[in-house]
This record gives sequence, C-alpha cells and structure tokens, in this order.
Amino acid sequence: MSHRDIQNLLDVAAGECRHLARNGRQADYIPELAKADPALFSISAVTVGGEVRSSGDCGALFSMQSMSKVIALAYAIETFGEAEVFARVGMEPCSEPFNSIMKLEMTSAMPLNPFINAGAIVVAGMIAERAGGRALRDALAFASRMAGSGGELAVCERVYASEKATADRNRALAYFMHSVGTLRSDVEETLDLYFKLCGIEVNTPCLAAIGATLANGGVNPFSDSRVISLETAYIVIGLMSVCGLYDESGEFAVKVGVPAKSGVSGGIMCAVPGRMGIAVFSPPLDAGGNSVAGVAALSKLSRDLKLRGI
Amino acid sequence: MSHRDIQNLLDVAAGECRHLARNGRQADYIPELAKADPALFSISAVTVGGEVRSSGDCGALFSMQSMSKVIALAYAIETFGEAEVFARVGMEPCSEPFNSIMKLEMTSAMPLNPFINAGAIVVAGMIAERAGGRALRDALAFASRMAGSGGELAVCERVYASEKATADRNRALAYFMHSVGTLRSDVEETLDLYFKLCGIEVNTPCLAAIGATLANGGVNPFSDSRVISLETAYIVIGLMSVCGLYDESGEFAVKVGVPAKSGVSGGIMCAVPGRMGIAVFSPPLDAGGNSVAGVAALSKLSRDLKLRGI
Amino acid sequence: MSHRDIQNLLDVAAGECRHLARNGRQADYIPELAKADPALFSISAVTVGGEVRSSGDCGALFSMQSMSKVIALAYAIETFGEAEVFARVGMEPCSEPFNSIMKLEMTSAMPLNPFINAGAIVVAGMIAERAGGRALRDALAFASRMAGSGGELAVCERVYASEKATADRNRALAYFMHSVGTLRSDVEETLDLYFKLCGIEVNTPCLAAIGATLANGGVNPFSDSRVISLETAYIVIGLMSVCGLYDESGEFAVKVGVPAKSGVSGGIMCAVPGRMGIAVFSPPLDAGGNSVAGVAALSKLSRDLKLRGI
Amino acid sequence: MSHRDIQNLLDVAAGECRHLARNGRQADYIPELAKADPALFSISAVTVGGEVRSSGDCGALFSMQSMSKVIALAYAIETFGEAEVFARVGMEPCSEPFNSIMKLEMTSAMPLNPFINAGAIVVAGMIAERAGGRALRDALAFASRMAGSGGELAVCERVYASEKATADRNRALAYFMHSVGTLRSDVEETLDLYFKLCGIEVNTPCLAAIGATLANGGVNPFSDSRVISLETAYIVIGLMSVCGLYDESGEFAVKVGVPAKSGVSGGIMCAVPGRMGIAVFSPPLDAGGNSVAGVAALSKLSRDLKLRGI
Repeated sequence: MSHRDIQNLLDVAAGECRHLARNGRQADYIPELAKADPALFSISAVTVGGEVRSSGDCGALFSMQSMSKVIALAYAIETFGEAEVFARVGMEPCSEPFNSIMKLEMTSAMPLNPFINAGAIVVAGMIAERAGGRALRDALAFASRMAGSGGELAVCERVYASEKATADRNRALAYFMHSVGTLRSDVEETLDLYFKLCGIEVNTPCLAAIGATLANGGVNPFSDSRVISLETAYIVIGLMSVCGLYDESGEFAVKVGVPAKSGVSGGIMCAVPGRMGIAVFSPPLDAGGNSVAGVAALSKLSRDLKLRGI
Repeated sequence: MSHRDIQNLLDVAAGECRHLARNGRQADYIPELAKADPALFSISAVTVGGEVRSSGDCGALFSMQSMSKVIALAYAIETFGEAEVFARVGMEPCSEPFNSIMKLEMTSAMPLNPFINAGAIVVAGMIAERAGGRALRDALAFASRMAGSGGELAVCERVYASEKATADRNRALAYFMHSVGTLRSDVEETLDLYFKLCGIEVNTPCLAAIGATLANGGVNPFSDSRVISLETAYIVIGLMSVCGLYDESGEFAVKVGVPAKSGVSGGIMCAVPGRMGIAVFSPPLDAGGNSVAGVAALSKLSRDLKLRGI
Repeated sequence: MSHRDIQNLLDVAAGECRHLARNGRQADYIPELAKADPALFSISAVTVGGEVRSSGDCGALFSMQSMSKVIALAYAIETFGEAEVFARVGMEPCSEPFNSIMKLEMTSAMPLNPFINAGAIVVAGMIAERAGGRALRDALAFASRMAGSGGELAVCERVYASEKATADRNRALAYFMHSVGTLRSDVEETLDLYFKLCGIEVNTPCLAAIGATLANGGVNPFSDSRVISLETAYIVIGLMSVCGLYDESGEFAVKVGVPAKSGVSGGIMCAVPGRMGIAVFSPPLDAGGNSVAGVAALSKLSRDLKLRGI
Repeated sequence: MSHRDIQNLLDVAAGECRHLARNGRQADYIPELAKADPALFSISAVTVGGEVRSSGDCGALFSMQSMSKVIALAYAIETFGEAEVFARVGMEPCSEPFNSIMKLEMTSAMPLNPFINAGAIVVAGMIAERAGGRALRDALAFASRMAGSGGELAVCERVYASEKATADRNRALAYFMHSVGTLRSDVEETLDLYFKLCGIEVNTPCLAAIGATLANGGVNPFSDSRVISLETAYIVIGLMSVCGLYDESGEFAVKVGVPAKSGVSGGIMCAVPGRMGIAVFSPPLDAGGNSVAGVAALSKLSRDLKLRGI
C-alpha cells in the first residue's frame, strides 16, 4: 500500500467521521479539558519507515492524559526492569471503572494493571522516588526520544493546575494505597508527577510517532535509535491490546482490533506492530471516556488498511 | 517463511517446552479431565493457505472445554445477529474468576463477556431455546464446517457425564441468572447443551483448522467455503484477544500477543489474522487454568514466527 | 402494668396502624403469598406469665417464612451445640440483601448469619442430614413445644409448593454453597426442608407464644417446661436484635428497639426479654420486605409499653 | 438489687476477667495507643439514679476513639435534626470492616451508619461546616454535659497528633467521599475535628456517666438536666445495639446483649436502658478491635446483673 493511499484513507476517515463528534461530550471533571474546542479533529499516521501522513487540524495541541501512562510504563520498565514493575502492579484488564477503589480493596491493594489510575500512580511513585526532583525532566526527555522529532515535549501548566485542583478521587486512591503499603513514595509528590505527566502536550503527528516507535519494536523511525527494548515494546503493546480503552477495551478490540491507549483529552494512540503508529484527536467523548469520532475513524481505517491483518 | 520453516519451529517449540508440563497440574474438578496423560504434547499450525504442520502427539484427542465458547459464540452471532447476542452478554474482559457469581450480581446479572461461564451459558441458552432437540446436532455441524476436514465432530460422552456430575457452580450461575431473567431458557436443558459443547472432542490439527478459519476471515482454508462472515470473525477474534485466557489474558497478550482461547483440558487455540491458526495441547495447567507447556510453546513460537508482526 | 392495659394498648396500636397497610404491597415473588388478603391485621402479646391478649383478626393463618429461621436455629443449637452451628455460619449482620450470593463469594462462602437465606439453608442442611426423613416431623414437634399451645403446627402445602416452584435464587445459593463445601447435605433435599419450614402455618397468638418462650429464657409460659436452654435463648435473641429485619434491622432497632424476626408473609415476632412475646401480622410489605403496618404498630407499642426499658 | 451488690459484682467481674487481657494486643496503627499500659483495667457503673460504683484503675485516662462517634452523632441529631443527619448517613449495620472504601463505592458513597469511619467523618463534616472554629469547643461542652460531672472534657494532644500523622486510610475515605459529594465540608478541616474527637480523654466513671445519660433517656443522672431528647436517645441506643462493636456487633449482642460502643483505646461504653451506664477499660484488643478483658467482664456482668432482662 502506497503512502498516497494512506493519505487518501486518512482523508476519507476524517471526512466520514469528524462530524460524529456531535454525539459526544468533552470531559468536564477537569475544567481545563471542558474548554477544548469540540470541532477540532486530527488524524495522523507514522509508518515504521518514517513516513508521516495527517489529515485535519494536525497542529492542534492537547494533553496526553491517560496516554501518558504508556510513556510512564515504558520508562519504568526500562529503568527498573519488568520484574520490579510487575511486582507492584498487575497485567490484567480491570472490569471496574478506571478509578475504582473497591477493586483495589478486593485485590490486596495491588492495582490490576498500569493503565488504571491506581496502577499509574504506583508507577509514577516508583519514578518519583528514584529520580526525586529530576523525575519530570527525565520522563519528558524519555517521551521526547519516543516521539523522536527533535523538539522537547513539555507540560501544559494550565491543564496540570486544573488537574491538581480537582483531584479528590486520585488523592483518595493514593492515600488508600499508601495506607496499605502499595504506594511507598510521598503521596503529594507522587500525585504531582502524575498530574504533570497527564499534562504533557502533544499533537497527532507527535503522538503517532510515539506509536510508531512501539510498532517498530522500540526503535524510533526518525532517529533510527532504539528507545526501548523489543521486550518492553511487547509488554506495552500487549497491555494496550487488553486494557487501553478503559471499560471499552473489549469493544475497541472488536471494532478496531489494534493495540491502543486513549486519554480523556480526546486523543487515541495506536501501535500497529510492524506497520505504523496512528493517532487521532477529537475532544468529545462517549460514556466510556473515549473520543467518539476518534474510535469511529480508527474503526474505518482498520478495515480500509486491513490493520488487523484481514 | 516457508512451510518447512514452520515445521522446524514447531519442532523446536515442542522440544524446548513440552517438559515444562511438569510445572503444572491437570484440572481435577472434573474427574474425567484428571485422568488425562500429563505427558501428552501436541502442537499444530494450519496456514490460511491450507498447509498443515504438526509436532508431537497430534492424534491425541481432548475435549474443547472453554474453547467451545468460541464455536458457540460464532454460531450464535451467525444465527441471531450481533445485536441480539450482545443485548444479552457484554464485550468486556472480566477481572473476576471465570465462574464468579459476585460479578454477575454487581452488573445487573448481564455477563461481562461470552467467554466467562455465565456468558457462555447465556449463549448456550439462546441456542437451546431456538433449536430445541436439534441444538447439539446443529452446533456440531457448524463446528465441523469451521474445522473443514470432512469428518463430523462428536461429543465425548464420558467427559460430558463427568462434567454434568460436578456442575454445582455452573448450576448456581444458571439458576441465579434464571432468577433475574438473564437466562430465559430452561436451566437444566441449557446446562445440558453447555456441558455437551464442552465435551466436543478434537485434536490439535482440527483445532488449528478452526483457528485458521477465523484467521482467514471466516473462510475455511480447506473447503474454501465461507463459514462465518468477516464481521463475525472480527468480533470473535477481538474478544479472544482481550479475554481468551481467563484471568491471565493480559499476561498472555504480553507473552504471546495473539488472539487465543484456552480450555481446562489443556488446549489453546490461536487465530493469527491473515496468517494461520495454531493449536497446542498439554494437559497440566498453571494456577490460572491454562496449559503451562502450551503457553510457553506459543510464546516461543510467537517470537520465532514474528506472529505479532514484530 | 395490668393485662387490661396491654389489651387496651394493643387495640390502640391496631386502630392507629392497620390502615397504614395501604402503603405497602404483598410479596409477589411467591405467587401464593401475593394472594393474601391485604386488609387482614392481627396483633397479639403473650406475657412471660402466660397471659394472652390479642386485637384484630387473630385467627388468621399465615406462613412463618423467614420467622421459621428462628425455630430452625434454636433447634439446631439444641441439637448440635453452639460450637458446631457457628463453625458453619457466622453471627454478624449482613449489609447485603438477604439473598446475596456476592457476599458469600467474598466471605469464603461462610454465610454471615443464620437469618439470611444462605445461612438458613446451611442450618436446614445440618438438620436434614442428621434426621433424614424425620427432619420435618422433628422440627415441627420442636416448634410446637416452643408455641406450647397443645396442638401441632403444620405446613401449608400450597405455600410450600409455590415456594418450591419459584426457587431459582435459593437454588443458586444452595448449589453455590455445595460447590465450595459450605453445604454438605443433598441440595434438593435440603431445599425441600427449607421450603417446608418456611411454609409452617401460624396465627399471631401462636407466634407471640413462641416469642414469649424466648423472652422467658427458654421456658414456655403455658407448659412451664423448658424447651431450650437459657444460653440458646441468649444467642437467638441476640441475633434477632442485630439482624432480624433484613436490611432494615438498624432502622427497626431505632424505631422499635426490641429483638424481632420478620417474614415476607407479613408477620413479625418479637421477644422482649423478661416481659413478653409479641406478634403482628399484616401482609403488605415495605421495600425492605417488612410489614408496613406491623412495624408501625410495634413502634407505637414499644413506646406505650416502654418495651426498651425507657 | 442493692448498690452494694453492684459493687460486689463489678469486683467479681474485674477479678475474673482482667487477666484475660493477656490474650489481646494494643492497637498499634496509632503509635500513641501502642504505648498504653496493657495491665490497666477499670470498670464502672452509673445507675440512672446517679449512684457510681467502680472497680480497678478507675482514675486511668484513655482516649474515646470510636466511642466519640456516639457523642458526635447525638450532638449532630440535636443540632441538625434526625432527618438531616440520616439523609447523609444510613442506619444499617455494615458487614465490611469499619474502614472499608469498597462498601462506600457500592452504596453510592452513602456511609451505611454513623459508627463506621466514613459515616463518622460525614457527621464530623456537618459539625465542622456549621460551627467552623467553634466546632471542637461546642462538641466538648456537649460531651461534658453528657458526662455531667462538672469538669470539662479535653483532647489529649499527643493522641490527636499521633492519629493525624497516621491517617492515610481516613484521608482516603474523606477524599473519596468529597469526590462524590458525600462530604461537602473541607477535607482537612473535617479530619482535624474527627481526630480531635477521637482524642477526647475520659476515665471509666466519666464514660459510664455518659452511658447513664443515654440509659436514662437523655437526662443526666447527676445534673438531672435533659441533654438530649428521648427520641435522640432511642436512635443512638438503637444504633449501638446493632453496630457498636465493629465487625463483632453480632457476637457482642449474643454474649452481652446490651447496647454498647467500643473504641480501639480499649474502652467500651454501655447503655442499659432504664437501668445504668457501664464502662470498661483494658487496652489489649481482640482481632475485631475490641477490648478482650472488657468484653469478657461485660459478658459476666450481663448475666450476673440480668442486664438483658433475663
């Protein structure tokens, strides 16, 4: 399939699906996210060969939100090793909401996976504890190598502040985990890093490039340098395939069928192993917290590009 | 990759992994399964082009157990349509054990997916209610078309009888669902069909052929006739990727990374879209109910054959 | 307080509260109970000195339903001893509905107390296992000694049959407990005894007499013979005070403040230690399954007779 | 029964039971409580007529801990009315541990009763919100009127500080409830009041006097002035009878059979309606968090004084 074809199919998906955004609603529990322009739509693909194709408002910036959990996980595995990370957090999908405390209480407080909030807070705690004041800088440098586009990723301060101000639930999760010893680092420091990671700003070309690094087995297609090991890529991609879209991970596996991670900012990042990274952005969300138009566009594209292999 | 290579890699995986069976233990809650020879090991691949390669005891017969849930689901979608099936059962992975009643009670008695027992009993109930006395015969004929090898699949009567005699937990699930209206068909009749489906006997070449039909988008590679639609294949494969290995579905996605469904008889059936079906059989199970040597062999093979695409 | 005063206060409570029945609805999940006349109302008191006072339709017969759990518990403690009974069932109130299976699954299948269905089924199983075919006859003889009025209590066959025919939920509980070893007796035989006990027919004078035997420390006030030990009376009364009114046990403790057990037939039996047994009957129930007019009348009477001691 | 008899029976209970403390262990999750002298033992009774009898170390001071929940509840009902309080917190016993978050999540975040931590935090929040900086002073004045002994109750600063420093779990509960709107007051301010109330210092004569005020229907037996209404006393006593001893409330109802509230400092306060308040203190606790020697002494005394009425 030629790159011209990819461009064409991105345009078709954008054209057919961006108007579906009207069936969704922006996240409103973080005030700053509620302000996003619901009409924005952008979709990008970066092949493992380094070709970039986009359609729509591909300059639009948005925060990574839960998509940063992919970055944090990959970084933690590279830093601490698979064994140490998965002694602290599980590998299994969770059938409770992403912010469930109940689930924690029933599983001896070991978060089921690193993509639910509890698990991501534990991962952030590991990073915060090791790196102290350098934690954010190191994580941003790592994320920038994943994106491989030269520039440095940065945190949107307004989103970070908004997130921190509306954090009762995450604070409850963190204090609970601290009370049972699951979270060992300082609670407020850990949450601070967690919120900052959620606030990392990207656009779809950048996000697709991160997906492409995963799809390429850990080697960034632009810089041609290995950012993470093949083993780490296997783990991250494997988890994206079972629990990347909150409580709609199964439905996404049926409709789209490729490893992905979504965020409540309206972004979805896919890694199609051996082929490409894809990113889509459209703020209005469905009831499960995933971009309505984004899922629709990816479903269309998955069929047109035979992303599942059939 | 040539077919000779596949044969070679199957032999390598078998050689390296069959002895790992000693780290597992056969299922013992169904007496007939406890009698399985723990030394048996078989692995087969059937490509979407119809090539068959096997290594080990590939004539050994075993019951499908939970792998029959794939057959029942595909058959139900083809018979009733996606909408009707998924009005009765969900699409999401379940973080409780496969036979949890609690989960049901907390989710208004709608089973989370068709691969946990509760969900499979609901699917069996739909089939039993529609087809009455013909239900088993019809389902066996359908399964035989999926396998496409000419012969007719049959139920192992001893396994079926053993299953039926030790069915307290499934009976509890079924009566509970009947009490809340989730299961509308006759409880004992539904369970009877469910146990019979669990008792369908296969060997790895046959099971790999069923996987190959799925991997080929619904067309059996031997008969070249379409057994299920591409849409049904997408659904079944999608669900296999998120919840095919009980409570170890996430770990399997990390270690192997291909859609699969396991059974407590020690079999695992994989569908690698666009490439091949793979089946492995080795009775001793890990704590999660999955074949120890089987998972290990598939993990090896996934890397050697780059089944994930990388 | 003279017995004339008691009669007067029963009449007042009846007069003020029987019309409140219009705010409730008969149980409808057991068809035979749905047929009860909603206008019936009866209230009786039997003092520890053996005086009987009644107001309303005190000849009206109704089935004991969950009130029979008191009989079964007292009988089981007398037969097997406290230690053996409470090795199989707990002593604590349950914050889940009376027929919750979830709760069982989370507590290693040990029912929290003998007044939830699961616990009462375990108690019935102990009796059924020991006494075999004589179980019901023995239990009825025991209940008759508790009532002490000379006649023999009997099972209403229509209610029993109706109960048995609509027993999915109890069947689910019993099969679940059998699957985990909590229930060791034959499931169907146990349920049969359980349903028959639920179907024991009483009127309020008879029920108040049973309460009076408890209130009198185990000695029936008519026959003056000891039916159960003081220790058994302490246990039964203690449990009635914390979990006798399903999910409204706390509210009843606040409103009425005396040990009691209700049934979905619309009866409530109280034991006021050292003073009297009281029984009330009015079929329409509140959302918690307790007689609306019955609770109101007892609340009035508790104040007028200073049943709490203040 | 003469007051000499009471003195005698207190001495007997003390003599027989104080050594049982060796079967327990002081609470250690609050460091300051772990320092309590395990050999201390004190028991006191205050009759509704104002007679005081004590045995053991009746000058020993200890913090009220969860017993302060009785004070806070009574104060809140008097201040806001029953309706407003029970619109925010339930009346039913809880079968989960006192600090369960799961339970909250499953019950729409409405705490099941005011004696579990979540419920007591909501009650503290109501008080904190209304009274602002005067909250503690007002609550202490109210508690002092309940005790009626002239002096003013005060907070042990060391216990309060220790409590505050080890409050992860309560902080998690409070932030969770704030996130869902159950707790509307400022989280840290509310917790501060809650910890201070837990730190109120008493001895057994003082605690028994508070119990006597409840047992006397709200009128302090020393001052003869009404502190709370009879209705409030009914509510508080009713709740004490169903959920005053954490997860051992049922067992306590069986063994002792009187309304009571315990605290992890090793105190237990009873209100025997129409007769007396009783308080016992012995720091070592059983697995359920209740004073081992305290429960034993009350069980003995309940029989000797026929506190149940039989």
